This record gives sequence, C-alpha cells and structure tokens, in this order.
Amino acid sequence: MSISQKIKASISQSSMIRKMFEEGAILKKKFGADKVYDFSLGNPNVEPPENFKKELIMLAQEIISNKHGYMPNAGYAETRQVIAAKINKMHGLKLNGDHVIMSCGAGGALNVIFKALLDPQDEVIVPVPFFMEYAAYVDNYGGVLRKVKTQNDFSLDVTAIASAVNGKTKAVLINSPNNPTGKVYSEQSIADLARMLDKKSKEIKKTIYLVSDEPYSEIVYDNVTVPNIFSVYSNSIIAYSYSKTLSLPGERIGYIAVNPEIEEAAELLNALILCTRISGFVNAPALMQRIVARLQDVTVDVDVYKRKRDLLCAGLTKAGYKFEKPQGAFYLFPQSPIPDDAAFVQMLLKRNILVVPGSGFGSPGYFRIAFCVDDATIGNSLDGFAEAIKECR
Amino acid sequence: MSISQKIKASISQSSMIRKMFEEGAILKKKFGADKVYDFSLGNPNVEPPENFKKELIMLAQEIISNKHGYMPNAGYAETRQVIAAKINKMHGLKLNGDHVIMSCGAGGALNVIFKALLDPQDEVIVPVPFFMEYAAYVDNYGGVLRKVKTQNDFSLDVTAIASAVNGKTKAVLINSPNNPTGKVYSEQSIADLARMLDKKSKEIKKTIYLVSDEPYSEIVYDNVTVPNIFSVYSNSIIAYSYSKTLSLPGERIGYIAVNPEIEEAAELLNALILCTRISGFVNAPALMQRIVARLQDVTVDVDVYKRKRDLLCAGLTKAGYKFEKPQGAFYLFPQSPIPDDAAFVQMLLKRNILVVPGSGFGSPGYFRIAFCVDDATIGNSLDGFAEAIKECR
Repeated sequence: MSISQKIKASISQSSMIRKMFEEGAILKKKFGADKVYDFSLGNPNVEPPENFKKELIMLAQEIISNKHGYMPNAGYAETRQVIAAKINKMHGLKLNGDHVIMSCGAGGALNVIFKALLDPQDEVIVPVPFFMEYAAYVDNYGGVLRKVKTQNDFSLDVTAIASAVNGKTKAVLINSPNNPTGKVYSEQSIADLARMLDKKSKEIKKTIYLVSDEPYSEIVYDNVTVPNIFSVYSNSIIAYSYSKTLSLPGERIGYIAVNPEIEEAAELLNALILCTRISGFVNAPALMQRIVARLQDVTVDVDVYKRKRDLLCAGLTKAGYKFEKPQGAFYLFPQSPIPDDAAFVQMLLKRNILVVPGSGFGSPGYFRIAFCVDDATIGNSLDGFAEAIKECR
Repeated sequence: MSISQKIKASISQSSMIRKMFEEGAILKKKFGADKVYDFSLGNPNVEPPENFKKELIMLAQEIISNKHGYMPNAGYAETRQVIAAKINKMHGLKLNGDHVIMSCGAGGALNVIFKALLDPQDEVIVPVPFFMEYAAYVDNYGGVLRKVKTQNDFSLDVTAIASAVNGKTKAVLINSPNNPTGKVYSEQSIADLARMLDKKSKEIKKTIYLVSDEPYSEIVYDNVTVPNIFSVYSNSIIAYSYSKTLSLPGERIGYIAVNPEIEEAAELLNALILCTRISGFVNAPALMQRIVARLQDVTVDVDVYKRKRDLLCAGLTKAGYKFEKPQGAFYLFPQSPIPDDAAFVQMLLKRNILVVPGSGFGSPGYFRIAFCVDDATIGNSLDGFAEAIKECR
C-alpha cells in the first residue's frame, strides 16, 4: 500500500459530476443515446463558432517559425496584449499585457492563483452553492474552504461573508454567472462586497483578495450584465476560460487577469508565472493561445442557450418544480421535491435522466441540471421530470 | 504582504534556465538574433514533421461532433489504446488503454504522478545531475528530493542509490536519455537498479516506485537503445512527452504509462486520473490528443540533431573542452574550465553565448549547452567558446 494516503482518501469521495457522466455513458450503451437524458456535465453540445473553425484551419496552414514551441511561461505577448485591450475596452480599465497570464482553462488558472496565494491553513471564503472542484483546488495548497450561505434567491449575503472573515482569511472566491445556480451577482452586491472587504482588510491588517471565476461571463440572458470586479476592488484577480464562450472545454485555454491596482502587482505576477511553470502546466497550449487572440469578439450564439433555458424552465414549471430562473450560464438548480436530493436523483435516474445532487455543491435539497444539451434531450426528458415529481406527492 | 510565503521564497531562486532564456531575449534585441548564441533552453528549432502539419490541417477541416469538448479525464480511449499498442509492440508488453493516461506534457505527467504517490516527507531519489524542475515537482506535494551521485561518466551508481534508500523512500526518478548530460543508462545498469529496488522494497516493507521521465527516448544516436523499465521492474511508471519527438513543447501533450504488473494498479490509475482532474489539468488538450494518435510512428529527423551534436563536439574538443559525448537528447554537459561554473557562464555571456551553469542541475563545475539550435548558431559560436577557455588558462 504505497500511494498517497490523502489521495487514497479522496478517491472514494470523487466528483459526483464525473460519476454521473460515467453512469450516463453506461446507460447510453444499454438503452441508446436518444433514450438517455444526460444533464450531468457542463460539456457544451453547441459547436464552436464558425470563425473558430476558420481560424483553426488558417492557422494550421500558416507557416510560422517555432509555431508549436515554448514561449514565455506567461504566454505569447501578442495574445496577452489583445486580451488586456479587450478588458480595457469593456470596462474602461488600464491593464497591459503583463497583467494577463495565459492558463490551461479556468481550472488551471484557479490552481495557479491559489498556489501563488495560499499558505497552509489560509482560508478561502466561498458562497454556497459552489462548483465542487473549488474544495480540491483550495485543499491542493493546504488551504481551507470556508462556506457561507447565500440569500434564498442565491444572491450574495455580504453580512454572512463578513462574519466569516478572520485572521486566516486570504481570499473570497466568487463565481458569477454561477455554477450551479445561474445567478448573476448584482452591481450593488459586488459594490457592497468590495466595501466590506476593504474595511475587513484594514481590520485584520492583511490583504483579502477577491478571486472571481468567470468562465460564463459572456453567457447571460435578458440583458443582464456581469459587473466587473476590477472597477470596485483593487486586490482582485479574474480566472477566465474560453471553454464555454467558444465551446472548447477540452482544449484547456483561459487566462488569469490581475487588477493593475493590486498591491505589489509585480511580485504577484512573478508568483503566478512561477506557479504556472512549476505546477507542470509550463504554459497554456500554444496553438489555442494564437487562436483566441484572433477571436476576442467572437462567442457562441447565446440565444441558443436562452432557448434551451426557456424550454426547460417552461416544462419544469408546468410539472411543478420550484427554482430560480437562471440569469446566465447553462445550469438550473431546482429544489428537490423531497428533502433527500440523492434519493430524488435516483428517482430521475430510473427514468434515464441524469442530474447531479445539490449536496455535491454544498446545498442538499437541490439538484443541478446542465442544459447545454440538444433541445430534443430537454423536450423528451420533460415527461420523466413530471413523473418523478408526481411520484413524490 | 499577502502572497504565499513559500512561493515568495521560491521566486528569487527561480529557474536559471528561464533566466538565461529571458537574458537571451534582451541580448537579441540589442545585438540582433544572429549575433547571439542562445543555448539556454530545450526549445527545439527543428520544425515538427511534415506529417504533423498534414494531420493538423486535416483534423482542423474534419467535422467531428464535440471535437473540442471534454472527454474522460484520462483522455480519449482511442488515443490511449493506440499508445498502449505501440508500447506493447516495441517491448513485448501487455498494456491496454487503461494503463495510459494522457497528460499536459511530461511536466504535467510528473506532477500528477508525484501528487498521486507522495505524502509529506516522502523521499524521491534522483541521480545527479538532474533536470532542475524535479525539485519543484517533488516539493509541490511535500516530498523531499534526495540527490545521489552518478559515476564519472554520468552512468547510474546503483550502490549510491541503494545507500540512499530508507523508510521514507517512495520513488526513484530517472531520466534517460538524460537532461543535462545526454547519457543513456545501459540495460545492465537498469537491471541492477531493478534488482536492488526489489530487494530494498522487501527490506523496508514498502513499495519503491521507479519513475522514468522519457521525453527524449526516441532521440538517440549511434544505434544506442533505451532499455524499457517495464520489462525489468513491476512497480514502474513512465512519463512521456511528444514535446521533443514531434517538436511541439508549447502544445503540452504527453502521457503517463503504468506498468500492468504494478501493485494495486486499479487504485493507482484512479489516483492518477483524480489528480489530473483536481490539479486543474482536467485533461490533456483535445486536439493534440487526436493528432498524436495518428502519429505514433512519426518522429523528427534524429539525424539533424546528430549532425548538430557532431558539429558541436568537434568544435569543443578542438577548443580543449572536456565532456562525455551525448548518446541521446540534445544537451551537452562539459566541464567548466574553472571550478566556478557561474563565473564561466558569465565569461561566455560576454561573448553573447548563453548556456546554463551546472550548479542549476546539482553539478557545480559543469555547464549545459542545449544544441537544439540552428547549425549556424553552433558554427558561429565556436570562436567564442574557444576564446573563453583560452582566457581561463
């Protein structure tokens, strides 16, 4: 018996999302893919934009010296500059290329950020429910995830966050649009959070960083806008991924953006670059870095997701489910009709519907539906959803 | 002051290789690229094989559903099977796809392996000189790198390794062909090592893993062959990268191969997959996984590197340098003409020649030349090399 004791213990509690994903693969073999309604994973079925495909073909054909070689660990200067310019244009800020470090998706970005920030026992505050991988990302560097409640509609509870701050607090981690709720935090709540963090940082005489995980920032509905944290809080860092915006989660491309006003910016940037290298990422994939530089104004068609959202919301409302209508991302987080969400997930599973229990996101009594699937999958699943809730009455 | 104390301390001792790489960029701006002889980084100037370019264009054009989406964290089943089949064919083994986990290069592979294996204070034995990033990779998981000497010709000193084994030993890490020496460990020495590790594992009543970092296994000269560790030692794991074989280090694609005979294989494989996910790699880049599956029998033209090696060896011999002729990889590790290798590196730098001090690899008194550069760079640097050694007399 020789593998890491810690990892051995983690294997058994491994991701519920991935477990459902694998369960789904088995069911699909047994019943046929069209008879299984797999809402388990945020793996967009929407194809990347046509422009992405065109650029990929063009780039494949282009003759560029050392096209697939190493570049500085932070990424190509050109890509970093283009991204900084876009952020500046959108939010009236003053980043330059140095404030952007290319990453292997948002998962890579968050690991690099936490490795750079955390000493053992440092605490990271996260509003519940939250993307469950955060627990591992923080634990990887000896940190402790401190979970705080949100309001009933999943909006930020700044008072609850304030109460959780203590001498060990290193960062607050937010995710808006949120996975699993689809909630977009309002400008007012972000401003309140910023004010509170400024005050608390002074109180505990330590910088509290605000880390914002924003892979869904461009997938929002009904004219909702995602407030930019850089404008309201200096000590802030954004983790971004093109996984959802361009529908290429398997390619592992994203970035870290650091607020130019952050304390000791140069040292933090050096730390992030060092951590990118020594964690074994070395750099974000070269070809994808070149492509995203050319696609800063391109996104998947958000209306497609809106249609899916509306179809699902209408069907679930009719069946009697209770939920907050998502303002962004492609997740719906309804209340489980019975308190035991894991049991209800099994009731759906009997109908070949795969969803993930809310307990996996820190919120028992709910479940998550990832609706980045075919319209037909949504439409054909609605009878099953209706039957399952009927069975609970 | 709020970033991680540990990372803060590491920044100042950051990679000498990367420092020279960045120094090189500055010199090139100042003097022109053709007046700077940059041997600092293992960043191949040799282009990827034509077949790679063809496959990339074809794949870019192909219509495949969910081409850039998530796949299982371990990678595409097809890619993993093709790699297992190749290993089996080369070495008469019995891997299946499950024994292969796709990784973000060898750097990613080694981090995942050490995260899966190491508990705090576990020791990893490495023969000196060694690729300096190993120290960070082991330290990332609380492990301790225990350095042991090699023979004068850089071949394995199995007795020295045996003496270093103790109750905390978790693994021995080898790298053949070696960075920085170009040494290929002989079949005999690998067999001796395996026998010793079997014996010591019994003595300390713990599995000692043999981890072999093999990004250069296909870049060998003069009909040298690299012995396969799976054939002689059950508890063995290989980290492989296509960075050098296909000249695409910036694309971050490689794999972990696990000996089918390893103890508790299923648990270790699960641990490696879990660690791939929670470290933020999630999976190796999708497009590159598809490409390498199609290029298992393709490598860069090794004769090109042989020519560079011979050109460099002839020039340095003539100038009076002492070194072991590399049997593989594209590094040469000569003795510094003066004991202070850092000082000698500065003497070369005055002549616009960039190399890396041996102290960075655990071997003061030597320096590393990465000869994966233009023939002209080698040719034009030889006068500078000759002058520098003359200055030492």
